Amino acid sequence: MRIAVDAMGGDHAPQEIVRGAIDYASSSTDEVILVGDSARLEREIAAYGKGHPPNVRVVHAQDVIEMGDHPATALRAKPRASIVVATDLVRDEAADAVISAGSTGATMAAAVFRLGRIKGIDRPALPAHMLTPTGPVMLLDVGANVDSDAENLVQYAAMGAIFAEHVLHVESPRVGLLNIGAEVEKGDSLAREAHEKLADAGIRFVGNVEAHDMIDHRADVVVCDGFVGNVVIKFFEGITSFIFRALREDLQQGPIAPLALLALRPGFDRMKARFDYERYGGAPLLGVRGVSIVTHGRAKARMIENAIRVGSEAARAGVPDLIAEWTREHPALAHRGVRSRIAARLHRERTRTA
Amino acid sequence: MRIAVDAMGGDHAPQEIVRGAIDYASSSTDEVILVGDSARLEREIAAYGKGHPPNVRVVHAQDVIEMGDHPATALRAKPRASIVVATDLVRDEAADAVISAGSTGATMAAAVFRLGRIKGIDRPALPAHMLTPTGPVMLLDVGANVDSDAENLVQYAAMGAIFAEHVLHVESPRVGLLNIGAEVEKGDSLAREAHEKLADAGIRFVGNVEAHDMIDHRADVVVCDGFVGNVVIKFFEGITSFIFRALREDLQQGPIAPLALLALRPGFDRMKARFDYERYGGAPLLGVRGVSIVTHGRAKARMIENAIRVGSEAARAGVPDLIAEWTREHPALAHRGVRSRIAARLHRERTRTA
Repeated sequence: MRIAVDAMGGDHAPQEIVRGAIDYASSSTDEVILVGDSARLEREIAAYGKGHPPNVRVVHAQDVIEMGDHPATALRAKPRASIVVATDLVRDEAADAVISAGSTGATMAAAVFRLGRIKGIDRPALPAHMLTPTGPVMLLDVGANVDSDAENLVQYAAMGAIFAEHVLHVESPRVGLLNIGAEVEKGDSLAREAHEKLADAGIRFVGNVEAHDMIDHRADVVVCDGFVGNVVIKFFEGITSFIFRALREDLQQGPIAPLALLALRPGFDRMKARFDYERYGGAPLLGVRGVSIVTHGRAKARMIENAIRVGSEAARAGVPDLIAEWTREHPALAHRGVRSRIAARLHRERTRTA
Repeated sequence: MRIAVDAMGGDHAPQEIVRGAIDYASSSTDEVILVGDSARLEREIAAYGKGHPPNVRVVHAQDVIEMGDHPATALRAKPRASIVVATDLVRDEAADAVISAGSTGATMAAAVFRLGRIKGIDRPALPAHMLTPTGPVMLLDVGANVDSDAENLVQYAAMGAIFAEHVLHVESPRVGLLNIGAEVEKGDSLAREAHEKLADAGIRFVGNVEAHDMIDHRADVVVCDGFVGNVVIKFFEGITSFIFRALREDLQQGPIAPLALLALRPGFDRMKARFDYERYGGAPLLGVRGVSIVTHGRAKARMIENAIRVGSEAARAGVPDLIAEWTREHPALAHRGVRSRIAARLHRERTRTA
């Protein structure tokens, strides 16, 4: 596999991106293509002191899309930005996957506009991994797919199930519908309509899942509208960081606290390992014609290395082809007639101007 | 003030309910009316050993609505249930507020059907208190008001602001709209429409608030559709209990862990105090013609005592009258023409049969 990496995106770019890429390449036969300011990348490679592995290649890109830039506008204004050049390598079949720790909006916009949507998928979706004691739960969409309709939710479900099975290696993944009650008739009009359609989607649909059920790992894949998913994931980040900050403040007071905390260090390390997001590397933008992995802006070398691994596995499994196959097998849920095509176009236009 | 308490509702009823009521009455001039099986309540009062305060009265009700009962059905089947009798005391002006730790659905249904809605309020809303380092944030609706429209959200905002100002004593409460971005144009169609109308609602609207902003206390009142609010609150309960359970498990391992944990006890107590929900007592069902306070099913005496205090303060402040006044001052946002009245009736009917 050939993995294009946007070496200029993310809080710790390019240093940590370069390091993650070299670490990955050193233990893999894949080719890693670092895309960005080539002079600077060569300097970072040299500075890391692990040599220049033969399977690490540098492709020059003169521009960078910054976090503050408006995604769609920046995409037009900077056609030579690293994320665009890296994505175009996938479009031109010179790479099998693209990875970025840069602006999520720009990475998604580049994938949607440069790779295009898979036929039958109205809206590409972005999942997030929620960690539970027994494994991750994929929640999608957490991107910006607001005002989803029932078919959108069914498509998220199918795409999430394909990724969970073929990349996360979950056998026959259980798919749930995020809802406010366990009973079939519960929820808003979207949830009630989606519930019916999910039963015929060729997936293992386990019914409604409440928010706390996710933490109990009642399903492997959970679908919801992007508004709800985005609220949940931002709330999750906010509340966990608040709790750990509060713990630190509250426990560090008093004369013997430092000693007691030292004694509990192994316990805190076990706790930290439970919330180890880095091992999941990143999340795939599902529904575009190619593999595009979005990783965290704060990603350091280890997480970048894992994100490249996820991209490689998704490309090897042929996730976009599997999704396309699902759309062909479920024409009623995938292709949605004139009204839906108009809705999809309006959505595209809104995405462009938003 | 005369406060009717459903003495039979909740996991620890009637014992803890009776205790909370006696504790409240001992330090207040309010009258507390315990509603339930009178013989049993008299026994509990005697068993508590603090005497029978003159301002605690018992009103007999022979039935109880159980947690598993369907709210609307149970309401019809058990007209002599404690929650119905207690709510009717408010309707008949024999009490100024009603408190229940029983089924939230039954308490809400009793309030809606026995007290009725305030004119101009289409849907009564239930808030939840989210604790932050600097004070609580009221999130509403977390009840079951799904498929809200923009006017509903504006009404939640006005009702939440009135409660925050007059009962929580927050001066000029900041009201935010839960959204997935800070910019005006962000969000789904509901959020974008509500954003416009909130500016003219006679409240201190501070704009969009993201989920993590709630934890940073960027607003005192945050409004959202009941589907989103219900998901957030259930997720919050799930994630906090998971983190604390995990901490216990992870920290208790190893020979010196018990001693170290003992040394950190004051720190853990400080942490526990941050998550002390009991002090807020309960949440008001806003928009009905009377004061109805829903408290937690697991509430013990201290929380019941606080819930009675909240009910007394809300009644003294005249919260329902203040809401009615707001609807008269904002006819465009409150009274919504024929189409809306039909929608409200359909919602009522769905609530009845759901």
